[in-house]
Amino acid sequence: MRSAVLGTGAVGQALAAKLVALGHDVAVATRDPQATLARTDPDALGNPPFNVWCQAHPDVELTTPPQATAQAELIVNATNGAGSLAMLELAGEENLSGKLLIDIANPLDFSHGMPPSLFVSNTDSLGEQIQRRFPQARVVKALNTMNCEVMVDPGKVPGEHDVFLCGDDPDAKRQATELLQRFGWPAARIIDLGAISSARGTEMYVALWLRLWGALGTGHFNIAVVRAEA
Amino acid sequence: MRSAVLGTGAVGQALAAKLVALGHDVAVATRDPQATLARTDPDALGNPPFNVWCQAHPDVELTTPPQATAQAELIVNATNGAGSLAMLELAGEENLSGKLLIDIANPLDFSHGMPPSLFVSNTDSLGEQIQRRFPQARVVKALNTMNCEVMVDPGKVPGEHDVFLCGDDPDAKRQATELLQRFGWPAARIIDLGAISSARGTEMYVALWLRLWGALGTGHFNIAVVRAEA
Repeated sequence: MRSAVLGTGAVGQALAAKLVALGHDVAVATRDPQATLARTDPDALGNPPFNVWCQAHPDVELTTPPQATAQAELIVNATNGAGSLAMLELAGEENLSGKLLIDIANPLDFSHGMPPSLFVSNTDSLGEQIQRRFPQARVVKALNTMNCEVMVDPGKVPGEHDVFLCGDDPDAKRQATELLQRFGWPAARIIDLGAISSARGTEMYVALWLRLWGALGTGHFNIAVVRAEA
Repeated sequence: MRSAVLGTGAVGQALAAKLVALGHDVAVATRDPQATLARTDPDALGNPPFNVWCQAHPDVELTTPPQATAQAELIVNATNGAGSLAMLELAGEENLSGKLLIDIANPLDFSHGMPPSLFVSNTDSLGEQIQRRFPQARVVKALNTMNCEVMVDPGKVPGEHDVFLCGDDPDAKRQATELLQRFGWPAARIIDLGAISSARGTEMYVALWLRLWGALGTGHFNIAVVRAEA
């Protein structure tokens, strides 16, 4: 399956590598591929420059948003939240139309210091903004509630823990569920929260995730929803 | 120990009954005790009127906020979030000063329909508003991430799951930890998230809790933080 991953950061790298490992034909999209490849310094978080990762993943094509998405059946939004709508605009509405768009981005706002706050929350969400702007895309919010290493390898955290789906298109959520199962998520730990408006819940949870990250000193954790037997 | 519970709703009732069971001398505070006792209709959620509960709990005194708090060593804010600051004002700053104030309230805003949104979030929280307004109170945000039956009886949800503490006063958090252990919370499942500003995380999580409540069809659930062994 031809898949496009938008974003070249740690989340995009993790998703692209996993999709390649699952046999997808993967293009990673960035605004200016030449500029991205020319960078030789680590990023702000100390991660190696993208060209180092690219050399280790020769099966991944780095290209522009419209080229990456034109033939893609699956699109993963792994940009930082502040750049998500602009990157999707660059891809072009016609290249998103009818396609499964898995939105992993969080609307993080670093302008008030650390931990970041959210630039949209409470009565709206980034997932809803994306679905409203691209009504023909089949948006599923997923995986935004955990560290990117856990997203693609739930075994990084022992035992059972959960991933959430939010979206208006039941068939898109079915496809997303199949993909998450291939990532290693047991069907019983994939919780459908309902419409894309429930992305408010998973995005606002990130405020708790950030505090837990600080308290636990590791990103290798996740939450399990524990309930009484029905 | 003399304890005051602010609020006569389901959360206040659950906390007052538990504190009585633990041997506390409990006063429940309401703005107008006579008016509260005179009500004969169920509340908006279908719960029986407070006087029915009161007759079943003769050890609990219903009184005004200043009378309930004047001699209390422990104060529990179990009001609805929109009324919390006004109720604490009625109690009086001098009656809160130096005391452990466990804040369970969530800043729910029902004006946009269901599920509710939050009237403060993201760069501030109700817990912080209370601590700022009453700087001499020793505020600990806790228990606001679950159904009130689970708060006072964690065994309502099987297995291990977590409760969070947020507050600026380490000694107040130690006292709150002891109380939560008497409620049945194992020490290892009481997670200190840090300063009162981390109440932003636990209050914003309520947006996810509300969606989970809708998806699961029960309030008898909680989250467990699962992590790799250190």
